[in-house]
Amino acid sequence: MSWKVKSTAVDIESLHIEESLYFNGNGYIGIRGNLEEGLPPHTKTIQGSYINGFHDIVTIPYGEKLYGFPENQQKLLNVIDTQSIEIWVGEEGNQEKISLFSGEVLHYERILHLDQGITERVLHWRSSNGIEINVNFKRLVSFHTRELFQQYITLTPMNGNVPISVISRINGDVKNFADKDDPRVASDDSKRLSIINLSWIEDSSYVDVETETSKLRAAVLSHVNVSDSNASYRYKMNELDIETKVDFTLTEKTFIDKRTLITDSTKYEDLQEALLSLKKKITNLSFHDLLHLQEEYLASFWKNTDVCIYGDDKIQEAIRFNLFHLLQSAGQDGKTSIAAKGLSGEGYEGHYFWDTEIYLLPMFIMTNPELAKKLLIYRYSILDFARDRAKEMGHKQGALYPWRTISGTECSSYYPAGTAQYHISADIAYSYVQYYLATEDLEFMKEFGAEVLIETARLWLDIGHYHDGNFKINTITGPDEYTAIVNNNYYTNVMAKYNLQWALKIANILKHEDSVHWEYLKNRISLNDKELKSFQMAAENMYLPVDRDLNINPQDDTFLQKEVWDFEGTPDDHYPLLLHYHPLTIYRYQVCKQADTVLAHFLVEDEQPEDVIKASYQYYEKVTTHDSSLSSCVFSMMAARIGYLEKAYNYFLETARLDLDNLHGNTKDGLHMANMGGTWMAIVAGFAGLRLKESGLHFRPRLPKQWEGFAFHIRYRGRLLLVTKTHKEFRVELLSGEPISLYIWKEHYTLTKNQPVVLTV
Amino acid sequence: MSWKVKSTAVDIESLHIEESLYFNGNGYIGIRGNLEEGLPPHTKTIQGSYINGFHDIVTIPYGEKLYGFPENQQKLLNVIDTQSIEIWVGEEGNQEKISLFSGEVLHYERILHLDQGITERVLHWRSSNGIEINVNFKRLVSFHTRELFQQYITLTPMNGNVPISVISRINGDVKNFADKDDPRVASDDSKRLSIINLSWIEDSSYVDVETETSKLRAAVLSHVNVSDSNASYRYKMNELDIETKVDFTLTEKTFIDKRTLITDSTKYEDLQEALLSLKKKITNLSFHDLLHLQEEYLASFWKNTDVCIYGDDKIQEAIRFNLFHLLQSAGQDGKTSIAAKGLSGEGYEGHYFWDTEIYLLPMFIMTNPELAKKLLIYRYSILDFARDRAKEMGHKQGALYPWRTISGTECSSYYPAGTAQYHISADIAYSYVQYYLATEDLEFMKEFGAEVLIETARLWLDIGHYHDGNFKINTITGPDEYTAIVNNNYYTNVMAKYNLQWALKIANILKHEDSVHWEYLKNRISLNDKELKSFQMAAENMYLPVDRDLNINPQDDTFLQKEVWDFEGTPDDHYPLLLHYHPLTIYRYQVCKQADTVLAHFLVEDEQPEDVIKASYQYYEKVTTHDSSLSSCVFSMMAARIGYLEKAYNYFLETARLDLDNLHGNTKDGLHMANMGGTWMAIVAGFAGLRLKESGLHFRPRLPKQWEGFAFHIRYRGRLLLVTKTHKEFRVELLSGEPISLYIWKEHYTLTKNQPVVLTV
Repeated sequence: MSWKVKSTAVDIESLHIEESLYFNGNGYIGIRGNLEEGLPPHTKTIQGSYINGFHDIVTIPYGEKLYGFPENQQKLLNVIDTQSIEIWVGEEGNQEKISLFSGEVLHYERILHLDQGITERVLHWRSSNGIEINVNFKRLVSFHTRELFQQYITLTPMNGNVPISVISRINGDVKNFADKDDPRVASDDSKRLSIINLSWIEDSSYVDVETETSKLRAAVLSHVNVSDSNASYRYKMNELDIETKVDFTLTEKTFIDKRTLITDSTKYEDLQEALLSLKKKITNLSFHDLLHLQEEYLASFWKNTDVCIYGDDKIQEAIRFNLFHLLQSAGQDGKTSIAAKGLSGEGYEGHYFWDTEIYLLPMFIMTNPELAKKLLIYRYSILDFARDRAKEMGHKQGALYPWRTISGTECSSYYPAGTAQYHISADIAYSYVQYYLATEDLEFMKEFGAEVLIETARLWLDIGHYHDGNFKINTITGPDEYTAIVNNNYYTNVMAKYNLQWALKIANILKHEDSVHWEYLKNRISLNDKELKSFQMAAENMYLPVDRDLNINPQDDTFLQKEVWDFEGTPDDHYPLLLHYHPLTIYRYQVCKQADTVLAHFLVEDEQPEDVIKASYQYYEKVTTHDSSLSSCVFSMMAARIGYLEKAYNYFLETARLDLDNLHGNTKDGLHMANMGGTWMAIVAGFAGLRLKESGLHFRPRLPKQWEGFAFHIRYRGRLLLVTKTHKEFRVELLSGEPISLYIWKEHYTLTKNQPVVLTV
Repeated sequence: MSWKVKSTAVDIESLHIEESLYFNGNGYIGIRGNLEEGLPPHTKTIQGSYINGFHDIVTIPYGEKLYGFPENQQKLLNVIDTQSIEIWVGEEGNQEKISLFSGEVLHYERILHLDQGITERVLHWRSSNGIEINVNFKRLVSFHTRELFQQYITLTPMNGNVPISVISRINGDVKNFADKDDPRVASDDSKRLSIINLSWIEDSSYVDVETETSKLRAAVLSHVNVSDSNASYRYKMNELDIETKVDFTLTEKTFIDKRTLITDSTKYEDLQEALLSLKKKITNLSFHDLLHLQEEYLASFWKNTDVCIYGDDKIQEAIRFNLFHLLQSAGQDGKTSIAAKGLSGEGYEGHYFWDTEIYLLPMFIMTNPELAKKLLIYRYSILDFARDRAKEMGHKQGALYPWRTISGTECSSYYPAGTAQYHISADIAYSYVQYYLATEDLEFMKEFGAEVLIETARLWLDIGHYHDGNFKINTITGPDEYTAIVNNNYYTNVMAKYNLQWALKIANILKHEDSVHWEYLKNRISLNDKELKSFQMAAENMYLPVDRDLNINPQDDTFLQKEVWDFEGTPDDHYPLLLHYHPLTIYRYQVCKQADTVLAHFLVEDEQPEDVIKASYQYYEKVTTHDSSLSSCVFSMMAARIGYLEKAYNYFLETARLDLDNLHGNTKDGLHMANMGGTWMAIVAGFAGLRLKESGLHFRPRLPKQWEGFAFHIRYRGRLLLVTKTHKEFRVELLSGEPISLYIWKEHYTLTKNQPVVLTV
């Protein structure tokens, strides 16, 4: 099966979308797929280079600002632009730039190499004077040296010698994308960087910038080398950019190697020194050496992560494409996470949401637990901010995580669909538990997990109260943002219960496994047994009602009392509803933006009997618009769970190629990370029915009739498993590690090496 | 009893507050009580002159702007400043300005003459050189010529001749008050006027300004005359202001007469021509003529409006003070209303709220129905905006009035305590009904009232729905802003019911009284009998639950399920809560900012039995903070209604002198109009127990033991009544008009002229 994603598009609209689709990243830096040679003037484009977590602080404006509304927010910044490499052909005075929009394009394609971890553009081009040339652009953002963005161009003359000028540019005068017609992209805030230093160091351009308010600094060191030993180099320093011009005559295949090192002040204090030392470190590595290291890294990733779909190449392409981009976007330093658009664009200001914990961590936990751990540590690193926020929100104790953030403080300015989504704290706790269930990493729970679980549990104890003997949670918003500020949102309550239960469980585990450390921790966070007892009480009495007539869990106390939205009277072009109706209008009706109770039934399935889960699915499906890209994958999984295989397959189709086919029309702003994680979940947790429980691994495999089969790898408690489902059989193989128990359709099996568990159909 | 409100304060803090307390207004213009001679530099002051409704349009900023959030709002502007008159004494080169902050103040007092409708400042002053002089400043903002602001100064030499220079200044370079430390007063928006024309016309200064966005224009024509025939006049035009300097030697009592005419482009097209013509019109009227006209106007006002309190001079002062300022602030042109701070300051951006209808119109309807009618017509004039807003908010029909506005569009940017307060539409309908009950003005209902009642009724029909046989209204906010976005707020439901019922009643009345007009109106607004039938259905089935255990009306569907706010654990300095807790925190608890269900029981008392009204009062009193100045008067009235006379009296004390004693600490920003109206209601509807019903006038008189008695006038269906309550008797006299029926403690009486109804105790 193919490891390539290809495109031959040369139209402006497609190129704009491909800036996101073909971005290169490594979790630290992300470079959009802009063209080296540039675009015609005034063309729609978002020229972007990002460093994960590199932000400025901007004031949030309010018409009426109330207590506790955040004063300012973080905003991911577009940093120094280093992509530009213009190639001019012909004699001086009569030069023509190689471009998709001049001369004649005889052949063009763009390729994302999923196995090599690079992108490539192949161009056979003829100038208006008839000069023919083959140009091959390769881009590598290195997993080996995270600061490295390398552009490697191969020029091949096709009809004789050609005078060539190469102009490489490093531009410090950058700003974020702003659209005057779109109030969500405030143009005021778009210019946040000033140039501190622009200079030549040895043979390289050096540009150093600083943000306006956060005072973070970023710097690049960039160097161009042409393989022609007769090439002449000239350097030009402008006020806001630096150019390197290389002249030579192209007589044979020639290579242009542009290496740009990018870093920032959260990583190094002396940026210049750091970049010079990194440059030295890789100076003896050729492009092919670096490419090889990249391939090695990818091979290791795919070994644990690859998913195969048999009998559907488009889906096969999509799933690998999605997994690759998730890897490219995931922060691996414990100080960053995965933004809503990853490192592919500026949508949602580069903020981290619950997406990471609920939609992305499942994949990383089951395939790349070391990376998952880093993402979890990020949340631990901002725990003090969450404690402060809880206090600010009137709680005596606990940790309330921000709905959207980069550096840890709340960045949401519309609290009914922001801060009110208290469930994010339970979601984060849930991801810690899932990690623990998949890894049994007790050291991690001692150092990080227990504290997060206890502090989030404390939040629930503080916000909830007893009423008629039930523990109730009022005045919050669940995942469904078309219903806001409600009481006893089922999702929130059941997740809070899980949170409380696991705070207690981890406490008991630590007490038995390392009582000294446990006492130390208890002292440090002033925890006593009475409080643990109250966790238990609250969990046991958590209010999780079932509507008797409908046999479903009501989404909240009043959801079922509302009128159902007039779907028949709503024109197609009025979706997504939030762009066409005031929130009060939307809140008034039974209508869901996305899975809410249905998602709760996926995450915590043992809280309800099968018939309630099924009836709830049926009920909520009728009133859900899937206006959020976080919805379809959940409905796919739960349709598979219940046995609606055709529905599961159709929902899956909506997720798998959402960005590749630009189904939401906004892929240009960046890729939909949560949905990409959802694709993996729809296969592994959906069709294969995988659940992580205390009792072990559980499967409920099903195969859509459209496919011949599927297979995937998972890692579980130090083991590597291969899971395969075809129309003939369901097979689980232990590729490495000790024997384990697992459950298929609730039946218990023991899996040992060389002795796969095979269920024939 | 006294008709004077006096002060001798000369400290900066008191003077700042007195700018509001001693403002002059006539419903069209309002001039704060700034000092003619000015204040020391950098002193806290809000120098203000306002034209009712004169506004600019400013953009509302949002961090996240959703559909239907208003793009911009209106903002009342501080217009051209004409207050300055400096009086310098002594020889040139050695002059000293008469001021409270130089020389020696031998005597000073400020007086508001409630009967004359003017303010006065009396100053006996000695310069540092020993020159003694008496200065008397009078200010008149005329009810006769609404454009006129007159300053009349009398100078009396006390120890010989004094060289005098008078400098009068008209300043076009004004902006609104801004406080950088207070995010609610955005300094960006403070400068909204540009000078169009600054010139001398005949003997007068003329300044013409235009607003930045709304392009409204305002102009003043100002002229100074000194009674000394030897005085010499010099004029100086600066870039942003015009000065008139008058030099003379003060040998005997001398008068300075500064007449400023102020108008705007909503009133006249050619402002200059209009002002010149107005100037001519009053040119032969002396100050004393104009004062006499003012006194006549006030005499007529007090004849219908005066309230007497026997045995408590402080309260007597307060009630007249309040009534006078209400008159000064009330728009009388059918194009304006009464801003939250009247014309006394810039608080709340000069917006009109429900305050007018629920807290101020009761007084005007019962004492000055002609003025009340103008305030009602204002609401009719913006009916089309309310229709548009209903559509924008997703309704197929009806009129949704803006929560705050000047020119008719929604100006609230925080919708949970703004647009969500749908009850304002029912409040407006209610005020139309009250006016009709007090006047039987059928012509008015034909021309304006019926349409407003029907369009607001249509809103309820559209927002509500049937559930379990009840008509329910979801996702709105009631008057209590500490509880937001709820279902079946009792206040809203009961007011909507009244609205629906009266739309139907007026329809039936018009049908019988003028069927031709009725058919015309029905056609014009596409009303059919089926729709009227559905009004009736909705009203009859309106959901108005009673909690069986508590025997109270729940404020909304979930109010009683919440925890009660921890009042004991809340420090005194944490009130008002909204300045110390996030709205989500506040919304989570049983805690009310102000009367909600209790107010509903006042407005529509026949919907519930006595015991429910009483139990509700007791319940809600315990959870109400009265953080709004709209609360205490309602609790006073309802305490009186139930018979808690001591409570009624204590709540009354909180309202009566709220501004005079600066009880809320923010009187400097303007007077609390709604509370002032509340004082009148607490006496008339509270202690006298007056209710306007279809059956007629109803009284339930009670007298607090602290008073000897009280008396007030009311007008009712063309009659003038005097109502007196003492410890000996309750007496109602018919001062003019035909005999009428009335009810005292539910007993029926007939009142005829010269035959008062007297109930002895």
